[in-house]
Amino acid sequence: MEAPRTAEIVSVGTELLLGQIIDTHAATMARVLAECGIGCQRRATVGDNFARIVDTFKAALSRSDIVIAIGGLGPTNDDLTREAMAEAMGDELVFEEAYAEELKAWFAARNYTWVERNNKQAMRPKHGRMIPNPNGTAPGLIAEKDGKVMIALPGPKGEFDPMAEGSVREYLQSAGGGTIIASRTVRICGIGESAVDEILGDLMAQESPTVAPYAQTGEVHVRVTARARSKEEAMQEIVPVCDEIQKRLGKPVYGFDLETLESAILSELERRGETLALAESVTGGGIGRRVTGVPGASKVFSGGVVTYTVETKKQLLGIDPDLLAEHGPVSPEVAVAMATAVQQKFTAGYALATTGNAGPTSDVDGKPVGLCYVALAKPDGSVEVNEHKLRGIREDIRARLEQFALLKLWLSL
Amino acid sequence: MEAPRTAEIVSVGTELLLGQIIDTHAATMARVLAECGIGCQRRATVGDNFARIVDTFKAALSRSDIVIAIGGLGPTNDDLTREAMAEAMGDELVFEEAYAEELKAWFAARNYTWVERNNKQAMRPKHGRMIPNPNGTAPGLIAEKDGKVMIALPGPKGEFDPMAEGSVREYLQSAGGGTIIASRTVRICGIGESAVDEILGDLMAQESPTVAPYAQTGEVHVRVTARARSKEEAMQEIVPVCDEIQKRLGKPVYGFDLETLESAILSELERRGETLALAESVTGGGIGRRVTGVPGASKVFSGGVVTYTVETKKQLLGIDPDLLAEHGPVSPEVAVAMATAVQQKFTAGYALATTGNAGPTSDVDGKPVGLCYVALAKPDGSVEVNEHKLRGIREDIRARLEQFALLKLWLSL
Repeated sequence: MEAPRTAEIVSVGTELLLGQIIDTHAATMARVLAECGIGCQRRATVGDNFARIVDTFKAALSRSDIVIAIGGLGPTNDDLTREAMAEAMGDELVFEEAYAEELKAWFAARNYTWVERNNKQAMRPKHGRMIPNPNGTAPGLIAEKDGKVMIALPGPKGEFDPMAEGSVREYLQSAGGGTIIASRTVRICGIGESAVDEILGDLMAQESPTVAPYAQTGEVHVRVTARARSKEEAMQEIVPVCDEIQKRLGKPVYGFDLETLESAILSELERRGETLALAESVTGGGIGRRVTGVPGASKVFSGGVVTYTVETKKQLLGIDPDLLAEHGPVSPEVAVAMATAVQQKFTAGYALATTGNAGPTSDVDGKPVGLCYVALAKPDGSVEVNEHKLRGIREDIRARLEQFALLKLWLSL
Repeated sequence: MEAPRTAEIVSVGTELLLGQIIDTHAATMARVLAECGIGCQRRATVGDNFARIVDTFKAALSRSDIVIAIGGLGPTNDDLTREAMAEAMGDELVFEEAYAEELKAWFAARNYTWVERNNKQAMRPKHGRMIPNPNGTAPGLIAEKDGKVMIALPGPKGEFDPMAEGSVREYLQSAGGGTIIASRTVRICGIGESAVDEILGDLMAQESPTVAPYAQTGEVHVRVTARARSKEEAMQEIVPVCDEIQKRLGKPVYGFDLETLESAILSELERRGETLALAESVTGGGIGRRVTGVPGASKVFSGGVVTYTVETKKQLLGIDPDLLAEHGPVSPEVAVAMATAVQQKFTAGYALATTGNAGPTSDVDGKPVGLCYVALAKPDGSVEVNEHKLRGIREDIRARLEQFALLKLWLSL
């Protein structure tokens, strides 16, 4: 199959360089390129400065077959992409009379005042054509010259998204040499990235499909990617590798692609006809939030209590006051008592309980910041408890403990 | 004052070029640079390819005083930033024995298997030093050579954010050419961006301090920014403008800078010696999570229940089965009953309850996806209930309802 073509994306806009907005368009465009089988080797962001935009376009054109510019197509003086595109390609801008008329009509129909500078949006590179924009006034542009392609898309999300997913995707598919790139993600919990790297090293070394790990909070995601003429053909390469990864890693592989740890847990519990209850102290409802984020959670999730104070631990869960007094709320004993109590309260098969000190002060009767306990009560009446010494800010400690609690449950199933 | 220095940001990671994740770090870094008075002229993104990373670093170093690299500092073979940084600066990597020992201890303390490649994270450029990373194993790096500066930060959010906002911000402030950019954020809830625009139009038009609004989920944040020789000097310009904004908008201004709506609520409740209880159905614990995210929440937050099923609404809150049968769980009547019940159960002054259908299927006895109710019970015995028809995916609906519930409580105080 012919050599796949390469592309670069250039986002234009000073607001991006000031960090005032997050560049989601570049990610969308990159995904579309990948799905069209065109390798995106670089992305760049440049402000509303003519010389720097031209310079950035030229550098990208010198390296890649296709350069896609995002933003800077509007009517105002700091919209410079159109002019810079022509300059970088050694082309000139021509005035599209017919489109100017369309524009005037568009303004008239909405009783908007017409200002001359709107005509700027009727200019296009001589070697280019306009991409219709049903959602705004600035059309996109595609120009082909000296074997290079430049595409420019407007910045507003409501205009960019339909164009990127629509006519630009179509154009790129035909430019993609008839191949596509497909991938599948293997989701792994409970072992670190370096350990995954050790176990899958030989797979990561191979040419195709490519196997690459990405560390997430308390998880590792391994992406298996292949290029082929069709998604089906690509999957014939990808699936056996995913199976091999699952075979090597076993239980820590909880799912694929967009499946979450909590959804994997709920499916398994539902399969077993089991139920789950929660007693959250330090996580304050965070585990419940994750569990109920899964559609249909009510089939498995009985309910939960957030017993954040000593009082509510006694009152709502009936934890023995002496136990609380003796060991303090942040203790394995109390975690176990909470799990058992909530398991009975909701007559649930499994119950998770969390207690700990997420900081910032260490005044939970002298228990240090980051010291947390997770208890898991099981249908057979047994209860397991783990101690965690977590670092980081309050937010991280709580997020990690949510993850460790769900991890504990998953690995026990 | 001397000319502020220039910087470029380089994000490293093939997953960015595939559009699989959105680059929020680059925006954070850009904002920090701006606030330190350092102009960021370009941003680039490159994949896990040694030659291209080096080439991108070199190009950036040739144009700018400071180059900041994000990602690629981990232990695996496709983490290449450390090596590329040394190569681009014409420096060599040296092994930091002491840090390797720390790492080994870190792994041992957690019973994680130690693998040799972790030693990679103990390498640093000869002309550089390590930036401590209290939240992970890969330290950041700062190297100064031939009048240029390179900074490298780890990719995981929990490690990147504290480092960027902490030691890196401090370093950049001193590098910022004697001036700093200080800003204060006015946090507003309950009115839209366009309304804020109307009311603050004249302030937004002025040169300095600059006044810029940013729309958030259910909130608007207005950033007031000024450049000066010191933070104190800048604040003398900024504070009066913030006061004026608060005077014009009133109650919807709930706080400043990093203060959250939930922390504003808890402070006000504590001031009044009041307490709060929660009964969450559709939000599944999300409001409890936000409330307990505030340090010292236990002074005000009595506790909560997550009654996700009809059964638990009856059993745990004693909601009248006839009421549930007649109106269905997604109804104003049940929301009110939940709020009253949990208020009594925890003998709390205020109680919030949520019920609704977050989708994706509309099978909650035919109640449409997005239909949700928030009830607020107050110390005077009165109960208010609001209906919300929310659009978007399950996740958005739940997040917005959390916000609306807290908003309801705040505006009633």
